Amino acid sequence: MKFSIERGTLLKAVGQAQSVVERRNTIPILANVLIEAEGDTVSFRATDLDIEVVDKTVAQVERAGATTVSAVTLHEIVRKLPDGALVDLTDDGASGRLTVEAGRSNFSLATLPKEDFPVMASSEYTSNFAAPAAMLRRLFDKSKFAISTEETRYYLNGVYMHVADGEEGKALRCVATDGHRLARIDAPLPEGAETMPGVIVPRKTVGEMRKLLDDDDVSIAVSVSETKVRFATPEITLTSKVIDGTFPDYTRVIPQGNTRKLEVDAAEFAKAVDRVATVSSERSRAVKLALDEDRLVLSVNAPDAGAAEEELAVAYGDERLEIGFNAKYLLEIASQVDRENAVFLFNSAGDPTLMREGNDTSAVYVVMPMRV
Amino acid sequence: MKFSIERGTLLKAVGQAQSVVERRNTIPILANVLIEAEGDTVSFRATDLDIEVVDKTVAQVERAGATTVSAVTLHEIVRKLPDGALVDLTDDGASGRLTVEAGRSNFSLATLPKEDFPVMASSEYTSNFAAPAAMLRRLFDKSKFAISTEETRYYLNGVYMHVADGEEGKALRCVATDGHRLARIDAPLPEGAETMPGVIVPRKTVGEMRKLLDDDDVSIAVSVSETKVRFATPEITLTSKVIDGTFPDYTRVIPQGNTRKLEVDAAEFAKAVDRVATVSSERSRAVKLALDEDRLVLSVNAPDAGAAEEELAVAYGDERLEIGFNAKYLLEIASQVDRENAVFLFNSAGDPTLMREGNDTSAVYVVMPMRV
Repeated sequence: MKFSIERGTLLKAVGQAQSVVERRNTIPILANVLIEAEGDTVSFRATDLDIEVVDKTVAQVERAGATTVSAVTLHEIVRKLPDGALVDLTDDGASGRLTVEAGRSNFSLATLPKEDFPVMASSEYTSNFAAPAAMLRRLFDKSKFAISTEETRYYLNGVYMHVADGEEGKALRCVATDGHRLARIDAPLPEGAETMPGVIVPRKTVGEMRKLLDDDDVSIAVSVSETKVRFATPEITLTSKVIDGTFPDYTRVIPQGNTRKLEVDAAEFAKAVDRVATVSSERSRAVKLALDEDRLVLSVNAPDAGAAEEELAVAYGDERLEIGFNAKYLLEIASQVDRENAVFLFNSAGDPTLMREGNDTSAVYVVMPMRV
Repeated sequence: MKFSIERGTLLKAVGQAQSVVERRNTIPILANVLIEAEGDTVSFRATDLDIEVVDKTVAQVERAGATTVSAVTLHEIVRKLPDGALVDLTDDGASGRLTVEAGRSNFSLATLPKEDFPVMASSEYTSNFAAPAAMLRRLFDKSKFAISTEETRYYLNGVYMHVADGEEGKALRCVATDGHRLARIDAPLPEGAETMPGVIVPRKTVGEMRKLLDDDDVSIAVSVSETKVRFATPEITLTSKVIDGTFPDYTRVIPQGNTRKLEVDAAEFAKAVDRVATVSSERSRAVKLALDEDRLVLSVNAPDAGAAEEELAVAYGDERLEIGFNAKYLLEIASQVDRENAVFLFNSAGDPTLMREGNDTSAVYVVMPMRV
């Protein structure tokens, strides 16, 4: 194998690969990236056995071939090469070394045979559709904060992507929850997605896939089966196992009868919550919301550290209400609001509270109160 | 106590105080900042029993008084207040609470009696002199990287500041070493410093003091005794115990007879060292320098990961030499060079190597070689 490639192109391809590679590996080959050169294309493939990423790029291939080399080391080297450098990669197939040359730098890296590299079993995708990058970005960005980190409830360790009946017809819906808060984000159902099985996309996959979605104009090819999901741009294909479990019936958690409506500037609200939470004890972080006619008083009372109180002018017309929340949860959902005011819908101090952006029902958040 | 102060002024004063406070305290009062208001001045005082910082600032004092309150909590609150806010601090002396008010935010913080706050014993300073901030910055910035982190050799856990015979007469000299590398930085001896006892300024003090030196035009009042050192701007006074130990005779470590001279572009050299070190094993990080007529070849050979080599055009006229160094040490001393080429002076592969910037002998570095 022998090819030349521009440093920037190589850095991008290897960067995506090394990010999938797990830092602590008991299986040496999993630390490596599989490099395959053929025709005028070079592909870089990495896997952690759950996720596989393949980045195809154009290069001057002088001699076809394939080998595997440490993804992290190769990435570090390429990162440190001067911008604009032309990089030559050569593997004679016999020495067990990959030579990387650029200018007056010369590296010889240990390789492992390409035959040892685990290739992810292919899947029969039952559903294939195209979705704009911006749409997928919104679906996952707005839901991922609620993913549970408790490994015992493994079926909550991802985003549940499925077809649902939204307020405006069929929707592609992403839901995540950890039992304390929940995010439910809808987007118009893309053509061809109608028969898609519901899948739980693992947290790491959400993170890796996110890197494919930075460019607004790109259309992402999505393929889904009962066991796998695939996201692809023209250059990069990310294939991931989905979580083998049943996502709980989240619809029962979303309150329908909450009528007490609070409307508040989301940014002002978040800043005020952050300020009063300063004095809260590390463990509880409980903030009390006291609502009265167009008036919200946020307060924290921590016996050791002290107390804090802040008043906000809001729109509220219902009867007096006092309700407590974890400050972290309030901050996280308030930071999801990017265009309009935050609208909170309360029932009682003991019931889950709903939040949305203005009148937009395509993004709905639920947060459980806590006793204060 | 009652006073009003602009948020930015308060943030700066409390920021300096909370940075001295240790995060894990067994003595509660040490987590607090002592606030004293009198006349038109408010002072903020914090200590970890080794270092004491006092920041004096002008404020509208309505009622004189003093109290102590958690430095970290107060800093967090002030940081989160809106820019430009006027902050009112009130302590009625009876409730055990300090009230902090700004706009519609209201905080009530637990206080501890001012009488419990430990005041550092005053010292008879035997030497008082003024030094430009830029000069002190250079002395400490260029030496601190070599401070030892080994607690058993506590007398190396700081920068040895003393009067020495420099190449151009009497000098104020800072030396730090960890046994593997050494930095020796000279500056013209300020008037009044002639009788200064040599003191070892602890690492933390160097870091805290550094914050006083950002402004080029400021003159720093330095006071030194056998046991304490003090650095003061018009607003901030930092007093620190010095390390009670004897700094070893470093002069014997600085080679005098090194004649083999290598001159190299410091930035190019650092980048090349960084690149070839990529393949070195985490533990040894050994880089080999092979020198020949105007030619330097840097190389690393790590049996597991592979090998790396890079050639640099340099000025070298002596006989062939191969010598090994820890890559981290080479990078650190190369990054000290800011104006000129790095000049290395070698003796043999087993002897300490000297580095300086061009022909400037006011900053000299020594690094021990390692076998490669």
